[in-house]
Amino acid sequence: MQFSSSLLEKAVSEFAKLPGIGKKTALRLVLHLLKQNTGDVSNFSEVIARMRNEIKFCQRCFNVADADICSICANSMRKQEIMCVVETIRDVIAIESTQQYNGIYHVLGGVISPLDGVGPDQLNIESLISRVQKETTTELIFALNPTIQGDTTIYYIQKKLSPASIGHPLNLRVTTIARGISFGGELEYADEMTLARSLQNRLPVESYVANR
Amino acid sequence: MQFSSSLLEKAVSEFAKLPGIGKKTALRLVLHLLKQNTGDVSNFSEVIARMRNEIKFCQRCFNVADADICSICANSMRKQEIMCVVETIRDVIAIESTQQYNGIYHVLGGVISPLDGVGPDQLNIESLISRVQKETTTELIFALNPTIQGDTTIYYIQKKLSPASIGHPLNLRVTTIARGISFGGELEYADEMTLARSLQNRLPVESYVANR
Repeated sequence: MQFSSSLLEKAVSEFAKLPGIGKKTALRLVLHLLKQNTGDVSNFSEVIARMRNEIKFCQRCFNVADADICSICANSMRKQEIMCVVETIRDVIAIESTQQYNGIYHVLGGVISPLDGVGPDQLNIESLISRVQKETTTELIFALNPTIQGDTTIYYIQKKLSPASIGHPLNLRVTTIARGISFGGELEYADEMTLARSLQNRLPVESYVANR
Repeated sequence: MQFSSSLLEKAVSEFAKLPGIGKKTALRLVLHLLKQNTGDVSNFSEVIARMRNEIKFCQRCFNVADADICSICANSMRKQEIMCVVETIRDVIAIESTQQYNGIYHVLGGVISPLDGVGPDQLNIESLISRVQKETTTELIFALNPTIQGDTTIYYIQKKLSPASIGHPLNLRVTTIARGISFGGELEYADEMTLARSLQNRLPVESYVANR
């Protein structure tokens, strides 16, 4: 692409660095901003810079936060003894959007994946183990993506929490979110693994109807 | 969507204001920026703000420019007597990218469209008329989109350039870019209008082969 302004060119190439945004889309976005008020564009640019500079990560659960402790951890209305283990901040947002969960979180920052060079030390696993021991946690819910890496991570953490590893048994229920056929999904197109697991973990109809 | 950080929420809603970017894409972009260096993100935000604040519009052709006159107008290697009339800056970029055009431009800023409240006074038409009279223009090429509004605009400008309107005849060739079947297009799927026009304006095979 040929630009007659280097300011325009630089702005387009900055936008084009974002994931999923090519040169043409970047140009469309920049020309849109060019049509907006100077004030609106300054605000846009300021909000982005402030977000990156001022955002903090919760010292307890590693979720994004405006202070040292995130608003979920700081909320005394939430059940502090139920902890949901997720991969990323995005998963926290997804679960929060269901408005069905009233416990707290622990963000691992990913899953164990030796092929990508991610070992347990790169993740917030050590802090999870110590939180579970220090806090009054009674249930640990794993809400990881259903991948081999996710399952490996669950297995690793469970081993780390075993009496053999800690030295004494913990009074802790460890669960994982249900795998099964999605709402609106069709049996015929489900993969065998999902279908087999959802048969294995079948539910009594009463509880299913009650939950609807 | 539920956010545990207002900084994150604001950044997402700013991105979601951009055209074609919804809440989920905005979140993906913001989380991507959150993973980058502080310096890179400051640079991103600075480049955007600078672009909006410092960019100028060429006083001659209304293209984007870093100075009072754009680099195309200021380029003495380009044929100053051939002027291409386009709707937007984007069209300038598209034509420049072909690397086949060596004249200068005039950006109208849109086309006449009474339904959208755009009349000739909102466009850079007056300045086009005076440029053509003052400068040594010998050919005016209309490269407007093939819409009724585009055709109306061409008709309007041509009337404004007629001897009846100016008071004396101009030594000016007025052309428009060819309409026809696109390369890779199929006759069978072309609309009647395009096919009819491309039959009407058929070319001698020699010139077609020479241009390939």
